Amino acid sequence: MFKILLIQGPNLNLLGVREPGIYGTVSFDEINNRVVKAGQENGAEVRVFHSNSEGGIVDAIQEARNWADGIILNPGAYAHYSIAIRDALSAVKLPAVEVHLTNVHARDEFRHRLVISPVCVGVIAGLGWRGYIYALHALLGVLQDQGKAENELGYDD
Amino acid sequence: MFKILLIQGPNLNLLGVREPGIYGTVSFDEINNRVVKAGQENGAEVRVFHSNSEGGIVDAIQEARNWADGIILNPGAYAHYSIAIRDALSAVKLPAVEVHLTNVHARDEFRHRLVISPVCVGVIAGLGWRGYIYALHALLGVLQDQGKAENELGYDD
Amino acid sequence: MFKILLIQGPNLNLLGVREPGIYGTVSFDEINNRVVKAGQENGAEVRVFHSNSEGGIVDAIQEARNWADGIILNPGAYAHYSIAIRDALSAVKLPAVEVHLTNVHARDEFRHRLVISPVCVGVIAGLGWRGYIYALHALLGVLQDQGKAENELGYDD
Amino acid sequence: MFKILLIQGPNLNLLGVREPGIYGTVSFDEINNRVVKAGQENGAEVRVFHSNSEGGIVDAIQEARNWADGIILNPGAYAHYSIAIRDALSAVKLPAVEVHLTNVHARDEFRHRLVISPVCVGVIAGLGWRGYIYALHALLGVLQDQGKAENELGYDD
Amino acid sequence: MFKILLIQGPNLNLLGVREPGIYGTVSFDEINNRVVKAGQENGAEVRVFHSNSEGGIVDAIQEARNWADGIILNPGAYAHYSIAIRDALSAVKLPAVEVHLTNVHARDEFRHRLVISPVCVGVIAGLGWRGYIYALHALLGVLQDQGKAENELGYDD
Amino acid sequence: MFKILLIQGPNLNLLGVREPGIYGTVSFDEINNRVVKAGQENGAEVRVFHSNSEGGIVDAIQEARNWADGIILNPGAYAHYSIAIRDALSAVKLPAVEVHLTNVHARDEFRHRLVISPVCVGVIAGLGWRGYIYALHALLGVLQDQGKAENELGYDD
Amino acid sequence: MFKILLIQGPNLNLLGVREPGIYGTVSFDEINNRVVKAGQENGAEVRVFHSNSEGGIVDAIQEARNWADGIILNPGAYAHYSIAIRDALSAVKLPAVEVHLTNVHARDEFRHRLVISPVCVGVIAGLGWRGYIYALHALLGVLQDQGKAENELGYDD
Amino acid sequence: MFKILLIQGPNLNLLGVREPGIYGTVSFDEINNRVVKAGQENGAEVRVFHSNSEGGIVDAIQEARNWADGIILNPGAYAHYSIAIRDALSAVKLPAVEVHLTNVHARDEFRHRLVISPVCVGVIAGLGWRGYIYALHALLGVLQDQGKAENELGYDD
Amino acid sequence: MFKILLIQGPNLNLLGVREPGIYGTVSFDEINNRVVKAGQENGAEVRVFHSNSEGGIVDAIQEARNWADGIILNPGAYAHYSIAIRDALSAVKLPAVEVHLTNVHARDEFRHRLVISPVCVGVIAGLGWRGYIYALHALLGVLQDQGKAENELGYDD
Amino acid sequence: MFKILLIQGPNLNLLGVREPGIYGTVSFDEINNRVVKAGQENGAEVRVFHSNSEGGIVDAIQEARNWADGIILNPGAYAHYSIAIRDALSAVKLPAVEVHLTNVHARDEFRHRLVISPVCVGVIAGLGWRGYIYALHALLGVLQDQGKAENELGYDD
Amino acid sequence: MFKILLIQGPNLNLLGVREPGIYGTVSFDEINNRVVKAGQENGAEVRVFHSNSEGGIVDAIQEARNWADGIILNPGAYAHYSIAIRDALSAVKLPAVEVHLTNVHARDEFRHRLVISPVCVGVIAGLGWRGYIYALHALLGVLQDQGKAENELGYDD
Amino acid sequence: MFKILLIQGPNLNLLGVREPGIYGTVSFDEINNRVVKAGQENGAEVRVFHSNSEGGIVDAIQEARNWADGIILNPGAYAHYSIAIRDALSAVKLPAVEVHLTNVHARDEFRHRLVISPVCVGVIAGLGWRGYIYALHALLGVLQDQGKAENELGYDD
Repeated sequence: MFKILLIQGPNLNLLGVREPGIYGTVSFDEINNRVVKAGQENGAEVRVFHSNSEGGIVDAIQEARNWADGIILNPGAYAHYSIAIRDALSAVKLPAVEVHLTNVHARDEFRHRLVISPVCVGVIAGLGWRGYIYALHALLGVLQDQGKAENELGYDD
Repeated sequence: MFKILLIQGPNLNLLGVREPGIYGTVSFDEINNRVVKAGQENGAEVRVFHSNSEGGIVDAIQEARNWADGIILNPGAYAHYSIAIRDALSAVKLPAVEVHLTNVHARDEFRHRLVISPVCVGVIAGLGWRGYIYALHALLGVLQDQGKAENELGYDD
Repeated sequence: MFKILLIQGPNLNLLGVREPGIYGTVSFDEINNRVVKAGQENGAEVRVFHSNSEGGIVDAIQEARNWADGIILNPGAYAHYSIAIRDALSAVKLPAVEVHLTNVHARDEFRHRLVISPVCVGVIAGLGWRGYIYALHALLGVLQDQGKAENELGYDD
Repeated sequence: MFKILLIQGPNLNLLGVREPGIYGTVSFDEINNRVVKAGQENGAEVRVFHSNSEGGIVDAIQEARNWADGIILNPGAYAHYSIAIRDALSAVKLPAVEVHLTNVHARDEFRHRLVISPVCVGVIAGLGWRGYIYALHALLGVLQDQGKAENELGYDD
Repeated sequence: MFKILLIQGPNLNLLGVREPGIYGTVSFDEINNRVVKAGQENGAEVRVFHSNSEGGIVDAIQEARNWADGIILNPGAYAHYSIAIRDALSAVKLPAVEVHLTNVHARDEFRHRLVISPVCVGVIAGLGWRGYIYALHALLGVLQDQGKAENELGYDD
Repeated sequence: MFKILLIQGPNLNLLGVREPGIYGTVSFDEINNRVVKAGQENGAEVRVFHSNSEGGIVDAIQEARNWADGIILNPGAYAHYSIAIRDALSAVKLPAVEVHLTNVHARDEFRHRLVISPVCVGVIAGLGWRGYIYALHALLGVLQDQGKAENELGYDD
Repeated sequence: MFKILLIQGPNLNLLGVREPGIYGTVSFDEINNRVVKAGQENGAEVRVFHSNSEGGIVDAIQEARNWADGIILNPGAYAHYSIAIRDALSAVKLPAVEVHLTNVHARDEFRHRLVISPVCVGVIAGLGWRGYIYALHALLGVLQDQGKAENELGYDD
Repeated sequence: MFKILLIQGPNLNLLGVREPGIYGTVSFDEINNRVVKAGQENGAEVRVFHSNSEGGIVDAIQEARNWADGIILNPGAYAHYSIAIRDALSAVKLPAVEVHLTNVHARDEFRHRLVISPVCVGVIAGLGWRGYIYALHALLGVLQDQGKAENELGYDD
Repeated sequence: MFKILLIQGPNLNLLGVREPGIYGTVSFDEINNRVVKAGQENGAEVRVFHSNSEGGIVDAIQEARNWADGIILNPGAYAHYSIAIRDALSAVKLPAVEVHLTNVHARDEFRHRLVISPVCVGVIAGLGWRGYIYALHALLGVLQDQGKAENELGYDD
Repeated sequence: MFKILLIQGPNLNLLGVREPGIYGTVSFDEINNRVVKAGQENGAEVRVFHSNSEGGIVDAIQEARNWADGIILNPGAYAHYSIAIRDALSAVKLPAVEVHLTNVHARDEFRHRLVISPVCVGVIAGLGWRGYIYALHALLGVLQDQGKAENELGYDD
Repeated sequence: MFKILLIQGPNLNLLGVREPGIYGTVSFDEINNRVVKAGQENGAEVRVFHSNSEGGIVDAIQEARNWADGIILNPGAYAHYSIAIRDALSAVKLPAVEVHLTNVHARDEFRHRLVISPVCVGVIAGLGWRGYIYALHALLGVLQDQGKAENELGYDD
Repeated sequence: MFKILLIQGPNLNLLGVREPGIYGTVSFDEINNRVVKAGQENGAEVRVFHSNSEGGIVDAIQEARNWADGIILNPGAYAHYSIAIRDALSAVKLPAVEVHLTNVHARDEFRHRLVISPVCVGVIAGLGWRGYIYALHALLGVLQDQGKAENELGYDD
């Protein structure tokens, strides 16, 4: 049974709490619950962690070394500048999938720079809450494949 | 029943044909078959198109206007400079999900520039052949949601 | 009697075909017809060529060497990166006028780069279908002036 | 009957005055006269204004608010840096067409930057004195179309 | 009665504590007191928050959603790179005025980049402790005007 | 009694004159009057100067050397490129506060460059007409403090 | 006996056909013939392929996998932007030598960027038709050396 | 007897007028007088023109076409951005020498960009009032040499 | 007896804890102990502080004002973007030496940017744990020299 | 009989001297000998010059004016920054072919900049010692063609 | 007993010779002597080499191949552009430590670029003459460790 | 009697020696003689030094410390990249005037960067051999003024 850490970065906790009329019925808690449940259905334990702090996320990644098999990470705004989070992921050497609710490539120019992505297995952006579910599936696939390592095959795009 | 166009860009046809010992048993045809089959299981028809030519891909997108409900697109190297493909997608106004087998963010600097992504619903990169399956699911989700349009909600990352 | 090649680049064929309610009654065919007719009224034969392919446009320019006196070119998205089309124009040494239906200077930053323009006589942007008519007139003027070559006089802007 | 302001920017007054053997018989006055005459033939009054001063051009644009229906503007060198002229055009909200006698895209790198163009209807460059006539026609077309606003249709180039 | 959150970013707490001979008698506490008092005189409650931590400031902004009507923010060094703070402000949708004690435009090149300013109502820089008082007045003005929203009128500078 | 020169740059004179329904009842004259009146209430004489011309503004700054104690400057578009105005301010060595009605940091990229600001005491942007009043107060404060010079203390932001 | 594919990119077919007085007696066909003949003299079969289309060149490279031992490539203008051709070369893993008739380093700035060169054995530019002959010799040398691989020795320039 | 126009750009008129204790006894008038006198001693008439306005300087250059043989130009801050002045010089085709009192290369980064220099014979910077005298001598030398044109000889630096 | 604060930034705590076979016997604690011991041998007290949080490091630097004579700082990833840490060092005015275990100049491009270094006495990179010992010696040397301040002598490199 | 100067730049003398097991049996002397011998076989005298010094290479090029007909130049690292060598070549006006043993386009980014190439006839990179032989042949071809000057024909790549 | 080459680059010879009152009693010779003596105390022979010439330094590095075990290098200004020195170090494969007397990161922008550092073991900057002593110790440490190679362990900063 | 060192940089020795028909009768020796003679006429001794080597020029500048009062420097191509020469000038603290025969601002983009100029008194470019004479006069003027130091007065251009 795989153990997965789901990290939710800055400001993501505001999802759904506020103005459900606008943001829909899929609240922050609901998204987290769906991922946890999808984990259970696939024989995996998912633990959720949220922090608005860069250092807090680094701490959580370091601690994951002791118990987790993989990480699902939505770094929020830190995606665009936190080399510290990148180094933490790089140091613990756990496979990670980066998720963004929105299509960051279609937003401000400064959101096109993704400094953490190069040390992740892959990135999913713009697919809403479903992105987390796909990330979970992909991560479990990677963990099962371990050694086949498809994403190191040098495909062209 | 939704109809989906799967576009495979330049050089992707070489996958698996050659050196199966290295590239694994998941050939180009096999990947396409898996997407078609996943479509069938989800009540969707997937038609596969491959071209090494930018103009050929533009043609295919334009024709999709007449029959398809959505597009899964792996633009290969064209991802990094084809404004013509971007404009075609933009003109036909069909929802599209962009897929890359590899994590383009972890490769050459010039592969970090994604000119087509801003007119797609979202992007999946680095998750191997599974990325296509997730793209299919996401596309069907979007087509079903039509109107709820979660990814227009202005989430922070 | 002058012979003019009108080249319509990628995605321009979609004009008017689709959603006439939005795009108006001036379809792609209608625009082409108007240019052809304006040609006839000015004693010139206009032949229309459309392709979504960069290589196809290069071919057409090369062939024009054998029959045409000048070129009206709307390179669509290729305006922003096709050095191959630029080289073709440069090689056949036929006078060409570049036309854009929209004001490319008021759109995305990447549309401000015009790589073909330096080898054209001039550029018209943002004046809709009328831009083609002006391009035709200008081209005929240039062909008639041949030798007076006003636009080589070094005017300041 | 439409009223049009023709603004001639810095150094354009030198056209034709000097060295007619080189610059041809089309002097500055002659160009202006041709535009005025073309206006008359199309039922429009064209008033000519020349200044070498950025502030003088801003003044003229502001005053045009009181009497003109549209503006033909050759900003000369100011095309490349005068945000003040851009703001003036933007503030008076009169439709304007920018004209350059030469093909600025084929000249110095610093002449490729056009800061005023984004607030104009369109741009004509490299077509010599004829460019002004086309600008006049286009402007009258726009004024007549008012509301059909073809150049807001989102054409691809 | 309006409620205002005053956020003091990293290193601002050192003001006045140390070397009063150099830094004057206006200590950090004194500045805060003056803002609180100015609030009282204008019928507003000002609560002061200081943190050296980016995550701490994000937390404070999020909590302000529950009680505050507006924010006065001196982000200190975070002004130049914290997209997380920008996103927080953007998410809570409270009007904010950014204050800098010094004229950041006259200091190091890297201090000219202000990543939070675009989601604020406005910015005051270089006016010392008085800048906070003006920010308070402006914020109260905005809250009273609510709907007149002068700064959305598109003035030229 | 301090004497203050209020300089209003290009296009600012259009405020309120035109379309009061949109731009509100605070016309250009009204703003100027409010600053003059606020001056009177604080024992200062404010003289208003407006010009659309860069050279005109340089002239006004130079002349201020003979009578004024300080300058409030809204350079309009010249804020982004006029080194001549910067040099004038720098030469006359009068304290100046720069004001922008709108939040220039939230507008076009080219409006983020402020070439005059480094030689001003400080900058206020985005606070509408109130910005002028704050600038006046700050300027009077600086004139009274002369010697305490708080904004030279090396605060961090 | 080695088999070599000679790829001639866009616009190269115009060489010599037109204006022999200017371009000399060495026509496109003549150049190709000389390379074929030089091949024969060195015990190698050279097959010539020309296309103006990027996709066509990618197709030809992919097919070469089935029969060729090496590639001589003059990518014409595509040298400066075709990542698709680069990826094709990279995928088929055949040794290739890039040839340019002219010295691209002495021409337009945008011709200094060579995106395909990094996946070639080497580059020859500016030596006219002789460059193809040298490329053939070098390619045959590499094929014979196979394993000695001199150009992987880490020489300094 | 040669006739020379000496153009003094923005803010130069402040030299020496103010604070003679600091700026020395060499006032603006004194510098101009010295140049006029040096002209007389070398059989040349020097006329002095000063303006703070870009347009004013363009006007003066244009008028010089009617009477002057050469120009000495200190463009002040306009040196760094006035393409209009550059175009004027370029149009009148009078030899000009650019002078800067200070060493602009040792000052702010933005003062290293000299947009007018490329259309001048040469540039003298950092040599104080003497620079004008040298410029006068050089200009007279050029006028006398006319035809020998040493500075077109392609020297290396 | 001097008191020195040793600050270890993000992810440095992972050194040696994990995989001693690879990372050697010099663990994080061991490094810290060696520095403390070297301090004792040189009559200095070294206190060790570690945090993964930018704000935490700023706090520690501020507190050092009350007890420390100098700082040895390995800012980890924050070296490349934390202006907040730079400002803290700058504010407390304690001499600091920056240490990096690895040669950051030989790693990713983004690690070549060192934003904190300009406010340090000096930088040591790539010398492993010994770098800390040298930093300690250098710091003690600086503290002893106080006033001789050799590194302010304007040496060339 | 043509006389050719072969210039070997910095560090090239180390080839083969050291670690023949790695660098192969083709030593520096051997390469030079092969070029000399190839010269003899083609009726040309080749003289070899080596220097690690930029000035030394400039001296050698200047002296070649007195005796040589052409130059083969491997500038080593100076290829990327020596404008002095470029100017020397440019001044002596002898035809030169630049050679690099390795494919500089496939190495560090800073090796892609070739400052000397624009004044050479052409460039050969990545073809090992054979590159020198081709350069010799090309140079002799150019010397024989003198006047036909094929590489000035304006070919597209 | 290890043998170390100490290379002092351009202008360093001026240290202390001139103006001892300002530059202190630590002359160039004294620094060199201290390093030699520190070598003796640690059982190492240090030989000092000084040159103002880039080529001279390349020569010295090449010769060190024959006798030295490691290099201490203060490249002076060449640190910022000499790829030739970099290539020499890279070719001889001797471990080197780069030393700068001053903190180059706190000086001109162009001194932040260190082109030689990536091929050194590490860099010490800003620690004055002591930096050489630390470099010596570090170099001896590396030579003793040979094989443990701590600085290849992938530490985060 | 002042003593002046005239330094002629790389390739300048070729002036006039070669092709007098083209380069005129003013040879390298002639220019030097004219400067020496002008020195004598003004009571100054001028010694001429030429080198193609950067290190040689650094040596000469250092030695000038022992005998010269000022330097006239034409650094040739080194003007654009030699920080070593800049540092040498900076270290010896002798006043220097930089001379370029041609107008470097009107030539290649890379010749616009002048790295030595900031440490010179001033720069003269484009005035041919006369530039040296003016440099001599200016240098003598500076030496006589010593203390009045006009070029440190902060003039605007």
